[in-house]
Amino acid sequence: MKIITRVDEMQTQIKNEKSAGKSIGYVPTMGYLHEGHETLLHKARRENDILILSIFVNPIQFGPNEDYDSYPRDMDRDEQAARNAGADYIFYPTVQEMYQDDVSVSVLVKDRTDVLCGRNRPGHFDGVATVLTKLFHIAQPDRAYFGMKDAQQVAVVKGLVKDFNFMVEIVPVETIREEDGLAKSSRNINLLEEERSEASELYKALSSGKKAVLNGETNPESVISLVREHLENHTHGKIDYVEVYSYPELKPLSQLTGTIIIALAVRFSRARLIDNVVFTI
Amino acid sequence: MKIITRVDEMQTQIKNEKSAGKSIGYVPTMGYLHEGHETLLHKARRENDILILSIFVNPIQFGPNEDYDSYPRDMDRDEQAARNAGADYIFYPTVQEMYQDDVSVSVLVKDRTDVLCGRNRPGHFDGVATVLTKLFHIAQPDRAYFGMKDAQQVAVVKGLVKDFNFMVEIVPVETIREEDGLAKSSRNINLLEEERSEASELYKALSSGKKAVLNGETNPESVISLVREHLENHTHGKIDYVEVYSYPELKPLSQLTGTIIIALAVRFSRARLIDNVVFTI
Repeated sequence: MKIITRVDEMQTQIKNEKSAGKSIGYVPTMGYLHEGHETLLHKARRENDILILSIFVNPIQFGPNEDYDSYPRDMDRDEQAARNAGADYIFYPTVQEMYQDDVSVSVLVKDRTDVLCGRNRPGHFDGVATVLTKLFHIAQPDRAYFGMKDAQQVAVVKGLVKDFNFMVEIVPVETIREEDGLAKSSRNINLLEEERSEASELYKALSSGKKAVLNGETNPESVISLVREHLENHTHGKIDYVEVYSYPELKPLSQLTGTIIIALAVRFSRARLIDNVVFTI
Repeated sequence: MKIITRVDEMQTQIKNEKSAGKSIGYVPTMGYLHEGHETLLHKARRENDILILSIFVNPIQFGPNEDYDSYPRDMDRDEQAARNAGADYIFYPTVQEMYQDDVSVSVLVKDRTDVLCGRNRPGHFDGVATVLTKLFHIAQPDRAYFGMKDAQQVAVVKGLVKDFNFMVEIVPVETIREEDGLAKSSRNINLLEEERSEASELYKALSSGKKAVLNGETNPESVISLVREHLENHTHGKIDYVEVYSYPELKPLSQLTGTIIIALAVRFSRARLIDNVVFTI
């Protein structure tokens, strides 16, 4: 496994791999790898000749009051996880290598951002789309892997790839869950003991909404009410949002049809949890 | 020569050419090809295995009061010119093929735009950078050719390629001139007879500015005055601007050093002409 810090060196390596006819699988991350990343790495490893992982805490996707400086970093542990997953390359650039002086262009995301978690993070998805545009040009992947835990990010990335005609296949990977249904997240350790058992109700609430839709419910407001009631009856968490949209367009629907997302965010005392289900009617 | 109208077909063709080890030269145009385009095509033909020309009048780079609808089009003549230049492919998509419904992303150009001709064309370079991002992903060129007549466009494209880490070499091609120095342009036919002979003074004015700098003049204001005086003394045109910047950054300099551009725009009765010189001190 090679650790590469320079853009031009990474581009030359991958260009050579591609010239030799190798397919490239790519997992972009901000490091501090957990089980969710490992699932992406394993899938990418199985489906491609070459596996690249990037580790880059991207400053331009953090808002002024967000946790860029305190975002956790642990390169030694990440390097071991990448080796265990059979990665061929880690791309690990500095901020200066990625954003040189006098940057003159960025990507503007005009849609799919003012809903769900994006509503309170102005500019966040511009930063995500800008760094991914760069990283796709550096890693030159045939396939890039993203977890459906952040379904809005996957939707934005799908829009980016479609509208800019990137020749990369976006592979969404299902959310990994605990046995009781709770979506795995590094934030779960911040749940108090009684909150931890309540937290499994988030996925149950989403599942009850999904079941109602598959049984014929077409009114989004009814589905939202059903999910909210489940949360209110079974948890003490504060509901941030419960929303239903077309997917990946993230447009409101007057009648539910096609592929849809039911998504929610709930605040517990020291942890804010998100989860979603995406399915086709 | 193949004429291709679909994005996915063009991408597949070029992917196959690249797999066979062919180098790709690319000339993006809005059609209505003239001698300037032909120079680009000939150079690209010599330097690459495969030559692609695209013809696409890009609506998003025209302002609301600009001439998108009346922009000249002549596909039959362009096809013949492309054949004569030895092109392998013309990429000739419809607007619907390039911009499908619900476009969610675009490129924002934050620098190099509020000077020269860009000052009066808000959004123009965003449209140029957005369509080129798409076209670079479609044509996948090793080298893309641009005329230095529009030096600001070349500067913006260089910024786009550097900041987004595109693996394409931008090849600027020198402005083609008439024997008396007038930069070739389809707009020259709109000059009145007495204006046509005066028009050669634009390049003479730029050359006198360049000569002064190479002889030791380091004050940009002095160079601008020199060029303005030459224009005022030798033409009846109305000066739109005479400006001097670093190149390709297009930043004002207090002392001239490095690579610089001297650029001007002059209005005659029915034609507005632009010209520039770029050189290293």
